[in-house]
Amino acid sequence: MDKIGLFTGSFDPVTNGHVDIIRRASKLFDKLYVGVFFNNAKKGLFTVEERKSMLEETFADLSNVEIITASDALAVDVAKQLNVTHLVRGLRGAEDLDLEARLDFYNHELAPELDTVFLMTKLDMKFLSSTHVRELIHFKSDISKYVPECVVREVEKKRGYKYL
Amino acid sequence: MDKIGLFTGSFDPVTNGHVDIIRRASKLFDKLYVGVFFNNAKKGLFTVEERKSMLEETFADLSNVEIITASDALAVDVAKQLNVTHLVRGLRGAEDLDLEARLDFYNHELAPELDTVFLMTKLDMKFLSSTHVRELIHFKSDISKYVPECVVREVEKKRGYKYL
Amino acid sequence: MDKIGLFTGSFDPVTNGHVDIIRRASKLFDKLYVGVFFNNAKKGLFTVEERKSMLEETFADLSNVEIITASDALAVDVAKQLNVTHLVRGLRGAEDLDLEARLDFYNHELAPELDTVFLMTKLDMKFLSSTHVRELIHFKSDISKYVPECVVREVEKKRGYKYL
Amino acid sequence: MDKIGLFTGSFDPVTNGHVDIIRRASKLFDKLYVGVFFNNAKKGLFTVEERKSMLEETFADLSNVEIITASDALAVDVAKQLNVTHLVRGLRGAEDLDLEARLDFYNHELAPELDTVFLMTKLDMKFLSSTHVRELIHFKSDISKYVPECVVREVEKKRGYKYL
Amino acid sequence: MDKIGLFTGSFDPVTNGHVDIIRRASKLFDKLYVGVFFNNAKKGLFTVEERKSMLEETFADLSNVEIITASDALAVDVAKQLNVTHLVRGLRGAEDLDLEARLDFYNHELAPELDTVFLMTKLDMKFLSSTHVRELIHFKSDISKYVPECVVREVEKKRGYKYL
Amino acid sequence: MDKIGLFTGSFDPVTNGHVDIIRRASKLFDKLYVGVFFNNAKKGLFTVEERKSMLEETFADLSNVEIITASDALAVDVAKQLNVTHLVRGLRGAEDLDLEARLDFYNHELAPELDTVFLMTKLDMKFLSSTHVRELIHFKSDISKYVPECVVREVEKKRGYKYL
Repeated sequence: MDKIGLFTGSFDPVTNGHVDIIRRASKLFDKLYVGVFFNNAKKGLFTVEERKSMLEETFADLSNVEIITASDALAVDVAKQLNVTHLVRGLRGAEDLDLEARLDFYNHELAPELDTVFLMTKLDMKFLSSTHVRELIHFKSDISKYVPECVVREVEKKRGYKYL
Repeated sequence: MDKIGLFTGSFDPVTNGHVDIIRRASKLFDKLYVGVFFNNAKKGLFTVEERKSMLEETFADLSNVEIITASDALAVDVAKQLNVTHLVRGLRGAEDLDLEARLDFYNHELAPELDTVFLMTKLDMKFLSSTHVRELIHFKSDISKYVPECVVREVEKKRGYKYL
Repeated sequence: MDKIGLFTGSFDPVTNGHVDIIRRASKLFDKLYVGVFFNNAKKGLFTVEERKSMLEETFADLSNVEIITASDALAVDVAKQLNVTHLVRGLRGAEDLDLEARLDFYNHELAPELDTVFLMTKLDMKFLSSTHVRELIHFKSDISKYVPECVVREVEKKRGYKYL
Repeated sequence: MDKIGLFTGSFDPVTNGHVDIIRRASKLFDKLYVGVFFNNAKKGLFTVEERKSMLEETFADLSNVEIITASDALAVDVAKQLNVTHLVRGLRGAEDLDLEARLDFYNHELAPELDTVFLMTKLDMKFLSSTHVRELIHFKSDISKYVPECVVREVEKKRGYKYL
Repeated sequence: MDKIGLFTGSFDPVTNGHVDIIRRASKLFDKLYVGVFFNNAKKGLFTVEERKSMLEETFADLSNVEIITASDALAVDVAKQLNVTHLVRGLRGAEDLDLEARLDFYNHELAPELDTVFLMTKLDMKFLSSTHVRELIHFKSDISKYVPECVVREVEKKRGYKYL
Repeated sequence: MDKIGLFTGSFDPVTNGHVDIIRRASKLFDKLYVGVFFNNAKKGLFTVEERKSMLEETFADLSNVEIITASDALAVDVAKQLNVTHLVRGLRGAEDLDLEARLDFYNHELAPELDTVFLMTKLDMKFLSSTHVRELIHFKSDISKYVPECVVREVEKKRGYKYL
C-alpha cells in the first residue's frame, strides 16, 4: 500500500521552516500533499493563488509533492478524500505540544485509521513563522534569510505596485 | 530507495505503549528494526535474551519488523550499519521534548542524512513505562492491562522459580 | 461548620469533563454550588437559561448540588455572598497551571479565608472543552461522546428550528 | 459518610509548606491522616519517631489530625485500610504536574473509588522543601523561617550531641 | 565605554513589578532609558503623557534613569539611535521564556552588537501586570498594593471626572 | 561604585557555551570573576587546576576577567568575600527556569543586596554542556566544534598518557 502524507498550513507565505519539513517529509512518503488551508473570511497578505504558486515553484524539483488548496475544511476530511495515510506536523518545541496532542486526539477520534507523524524543526528555524515574516515585510526589513527566493521576488513585485 | 526505520529502547519489558508505537511505525517503513539497547554494567529485571524473545513473539505477525540487540552503542552508529533512513521516537508529552530536542540535535550533528520521526503516544498509554511495570511486578500487582500477554506469562514463569 | 463549594464556568454547554468534576466535588462538600458565569456582552451558543436548565437536568440526582447564575461577577464575590468555603477548579494539565496559580494568588488576596481545591481531570477527558463541543456542533459532527444526553437533545431541538 | 483525607510525605523534617497544606486540608475533612512514609533502606536526617513526634507537636491543636507511619507501602493501600476517601497533595507549580498526573492515573487504576484533591502551595512557600531545609542544616544556616519551632529545637538538641 | 540600558513596555500603568526591575537595572547601567512604547491605533487606559509623567515621578530620585516614548517602533531601532548597549527584560517564569527566546533571537539577527539582560521578577510580584491592575481599576478594587502612589492618585483624580 | 560580576560553574571542561556567556558578561561588568566551584568528594574528568588553567588561557585577552576556585562553598558566600554586586547565570530554556527561580529566591534570602542577571544562551549553543562534551570524549568523538582549542589540546595530551 502506498504511503501518502498531507502537510497543511496557511503558508502566508511559505518559510524556510516549511521548506525543511516538506523536503524531509517528501522522502518519507510515496506521495506528499501540501495543503494550503484558508478561511474565506480572513484576508491574508498573499492570495491563496499566490501562496499555491510560490509553493509550486519552491518544490518544482520534487515530483512526489503536490500542492492543493482547501477552504474552511478539516484536515481529516481532506485526508479521507485523498486516501492520505499520514498527517505530517512540524514540532518547534514543548510549547507546541499541548495543541498538537489535542489535535492528535481529535483527529484519532474522527479518523482512527489515519496516523500523524511529527518532524522536529531544525534549531535554526525554531523561531521562524509566517507571522514573523509578515511583520518583517510590514517593517520593510530583509526577509531573504527566512523564505525561498520566489517569496522575495513576489514581495518585491507587490512593492512595485502597492504599499505592503 | 527503501525507507528503513529504527526504534530503540531497553524494553525491560516491552509495554503496550511500545507495541502501539511499533505497530504504527511498521506501517510507515519498508523495514523496521526494533533495537534492544542495553548496558552490560546495568542488570535489568529481564535478560536481554528474554526481552528480545518477548518482542519477537509480540511482533511475530509483522514480517517487516526485526528485533536486534546492541550493547553500549549509540543509536546513530547502529543506524549507519543497518542503512537506516529514519529513527523512530515515541512522544508522551511536553515533558519529553527537551530531551528529544537535544537528542535530535546531536543525532543530526553525527549523522546529517539520518532523520527522526516522532509518533505521539495514545492518551491511554501516556503514563505507561517499563519502570512502572517493574514496580507493579515488585509489588506483585496485576500487569496484564499494560503489557502483551507473553510478558505476563514470562513473569508467571519466573515467579514459579524465584521471588521477583 | 459546613463545607460549601463553588464550581464556576460558562457551561456553554456542559461537557462530560464538567460532569466528572462536579460529581466528584459533590462528594467532598455538604453543599456544592455550580455557577453559570456569563458576560452580557458576549453572546453564547446557548442562552444562560438553557445552560442552567441542562445542568439542572444533569445533576437532578444530586440533592446537594444547586445551579446558580451570575453576570459579570468575580467568583470570590459570589462566594462571599453564599458563605462558600472552597472554590473548586478542574486541572487538565501543566498548561493550566500558570493561569490557575495567578487566579489562586489574587483570590487569596481578595478573600484570604476562602480556599481553592483542585481536582485533576480524568485522562480521557483531558482534551474535552465547551469550545471544542461548539466546533463539533458547527461542523454538524457527533457530540454524544462528550456531553450529557440532555445537551444532545437540546442541540437536536435547536436544529429543528434554526441552523446551528 | 465521613470525609477522610490522607496526606503523605517523608517529612524529614516537616516544613512550613507542609504545615500550610495540612492546616488547610484539616478544614476540608472530618478526619485527616498525615502519613510519614519511609523506606527502611534509606536513612533520613531525622528518625521516623522524631519526624512523627515533631508533626504531633506541630498539630497538637488540631483534634481531627492524626499522625501515622508506614514503611515501604503504597499510599492507596494505606488509604484502603483506613477508609480514606481522599488523598491530599500539594502543588507547587507546573513542574510538579507531570508526576502528579501520573500518580493520579495509577492511583485511580488501583483504587477507583479513592479521589485526590490538590491544594496549591502559597507563593511564598513555593520553593520550600525538606531537601532544602536539610541543606541549610548542613551549612549550619538559619532554618527558623522555614520550619515549625519544634524542628528548630530538635536540630539544636541534636547539635548539642553530634555534628549534623 | 558606557553601559547603557533600555527597558521597554506599555506601562499602562507602571506597576510595582516594573519599579522593582527598573530600580535594580538602574544599578547595572551608567544610564537607563525607560521606553514607553505605544501603538497609536490602540487606546490605553492612560494617555502616553500620563504614563510618562507617572514614571518620571516614580523615578525622580534616580538621576541615571530617563523616560522616553516611542510610537510603533522596534526596540532595537530605538536602541541603535540612543547608543544602547543592553536591552533589559523582566522574567516572571517559564511561561515567559518562549516569547523571550524568540525576541532575543530576532533582536540578535537585527542588531548583533546589542545584548539582552534578564532580571527575574521577585516572587511576590510574579503575578503583577498592568492588565491585572486595569481589571482592578475596572472593578473599583484597591490597587494600592500593586502600583506606586502616584498611580493611585492619578486614578483617584480621573475618578473625580469620569467613570473608569 | 564598581559593578562586579561572578559566574560560577564546574567547567569540567569549559565549553563554547560558557565562553559566549563569559565574553558577553565581561562587557557588562568592571570586573568579572569566573569561579570554578568543585566538590572534593566528586572526581571530575579534569582536575581543578587543569580547568582553571584552560579558562585562563581562553580568556587571556580579557583583562577584567579573573578565574578563581572554591571548594564546597555557596556562590553567595564567595560573592560577599569578593564584593560581588551581581551573580551571572546563563539560561538555556524554559527547562532551566524552575531551578533558576529557586536559586534566585534563596540567594535573595541569604544576600538581599546581591542581584542576579541572566544572559540567554545563543540558540546554536542551547544543547551544549560539559556533560555532553565528556560523553563525546568518552566515545572518542570530535569535540572541536564545542570547546575552545586549548581543551582539545588538553584532551589530546591526556590521551597520549592514559585512556580517557
